[in-house]
Amino acid sequence: MLATIAEDGDAVVILDQTKLPQETAFVRLTDLAGAAHAIRSMQVRGAPLIGATAAYGVALGLREGKPFDEILATLAATRPTAVNLHWALERMKAALAEGRDAWQEARAIAREDAEANAAIGRYGLAILEEIARRKGRIEVMTHCNAGWLATVAHGTALAPIYAAHETGIAVHVWVSETRPRNQGRLTAWELAQSRVPHTFIADNAAGLLMMQGRVDVVIVGADRIAANGDTANKVGTYLKALAAHAHGVPFYVAAPVSTIDFACPDGTRIPIEERAAEEFGELHTPVANPAFDVTPAALISGIITEHGVVPADQLGRVKP
Amino acid sequence: MLATIAEDGDAVVILDQTKLPQETAFVRLTDLAGAAHAIRSMQVRGAPLIGATAAYGVALGLREGKPFDEILATLAATRPTAVNLHWALERMKAALAEGRDAWQEARAIAREDAEANAAIGRYGLAILEEIARRKGRIEVMTHCNAGWLATVAHGTALAPIYAAHETGIAVHVWVSETRPRNQGRLTAWELAQSRVPHTFIADNAAGLLMMQGRVDVVIVGADRIAANGDTANKVGTYLKALAAHAHGVPFYVAAPVSTIDFACPDGTRIPIEERAAEEFGELHTPVANPAFDVTPAALISGIITEHGVVPADQLGRVKP
Repeated sequence: MLATIAEDGDAVVILDQTKLPQETAFVRLTDLAGAAHAIRSMQVRGAPLIGATAAYGVALGLREGKPFDEILATLAATRPTAVNLHWALERMKAALAEGRDAWQEARAIAREDAEANAAIGRYGLAILEEIARRKGRIEVMTHCNAGWLATVAHGTALAPIYAAHETGIAVHVWVSETRPRNQGRLTAWELAQSRVPHTFIADNAAGLLMMQGRVDVVIVGADRIAANGDTANKVGTYLKALAAHAHGVPFYVAAPVSTIDFACPDGTRIPIEERAAEEFGELHTPVANPAFDVTPAALISGIITEHGVVPADQLGRVKP
Repeated sequence: MLATIAEDGDAVVILDQTKLPQETAFVRLTDLAGAAHAIRSMQVRGAPLIGATAAYGVALGLREGKPFDEILATLAATRPTAVNLHWALERMKAALAEGRDAWQEARAIAREDAEANAAIGRYGLAILEEIARRKGRIEVMTHCNAGWLATVAHGTALAPIYAAHETGIAVHVWVSETRPRNQGRLTAWELAQSRVPHTFIADNAAGLLMMQGRVDVVIVGADRIAANGDTANKVGTYLKALAAHAHGVPFYVAAPVSTIDFACPDGTRIPIEERAAEEFGELHTPVANPAFDVTPAALISGIITEHGVVPADQLGRVKP
């Protein structure tokens, strides 16, 4: 498996996700500007991977001799919704205040993300095993890409799917295109690498498939979870949650505890990033392009974290 | 305004919607094969326009001397979901059995579609006027293209919007991209021609906009309405209906009575067309591409027909 982010000598090498799946290209990050650009332009994407990249961005910026405040401000301004970005910056700030080494702390953040996602895979696997016991096989729907491409390793929403596939459970995944950035193509590519059976669909098809009884469970990632369980994730997630609710399909969010913003009381306080109209290609018309939406806690069957599956309205249980 | 379909000498000229909005091109239909191809390839699209094109296809086929059964079978096989196709073929069959002229009957079908849609515009306008009286302006969401491009004239879902705009009501339209065929680009182009303010969005953004209170009413077209009011329309319609329901936003279907299939008891009996994977462009992955979904009658505030606005569960009132 490729690495989404890795150290190489005095550089940080990232897999350029804007080139996938057509091309497997890597970018060497050697300074703060490069790290900020990688996050802003979505060369790296997915809340956990954004967090790890920001941590390394701090280390790169310090090596350049940039003022610490400028480093934090530059990285914090790259993307507004994913809270892991701010979580990673806060953690770097605290580590440096305690005299710890920036590179070692960034490395720890990356390693812990991989470990957390492996644990998410194990806890999520139990949910899938239970369904597979009843039905013999399992149909999972996901949205966007919350696989290993969105993290340092393993993925969040896809971690239980990989775990189930490795266990020999017959799992099939409905992969949504995820307009306008088409991250579903990344998910299809990821699943194909691991030979997990999957079918690509238009985002629009999610309701019909649930109505037809062709979805057993939905698992998505998250960019920011408010303290009350309201969850911001890639735009379109909320529509899938509504359809799942209408048809009694369990709807899970898989995310490390670093994605929970305990300082944010509810979903109305989560800033929604508005991205450029150009993401739709050439269009001679006014465009609105919110990158995220908010799924109310009441529509979420549980949050799959590295500390277990928690009801969305009881996140205090995993508060650090 | 351009004509979507018109006679020209001994040919039928259609606006080629696969070329829009980049190019305004016309295709001359001179035989049955051309008419069938136009429907199948979506050079013409939209349930009412498919019906009119099929009617002219019968006239063209008869002029070629094709057997009547072959003409009906060829046209009936082009697309499975839009019931107007079958309605038009049945009407042509009955007219010919009574000794009427095929061209005159096709012409009557086309003229009556334009008249029905003008009436839909008037009845729908009353709904929009009522909202505008309360709010001063009105935010309408639609899906796919149910404008004049989808009909012989005026449109169905867009007819009330055009009527409101002409009356001087401040109306703004949220236009969904409508993957995978991007008919939202047709809707944006149509609205721009008439200078109706509008904003293009990803299909995924519909839930967020409703949650944010930025949608006053949803109006969509239909491809087939079952006798109980369940409505097949472009895939993704159902997700918008669920979101509208969750936020108390009225959700209307605008369609001529010819779109109601009184022989079809409910939505489970409506055949859902599966289209080619190539509609997504190059993808090296299995694809499911259902072109329609079914919105249950319970989510529909009313059906706007040429005979007035009817509750979805009381369609018997407009049965011919």
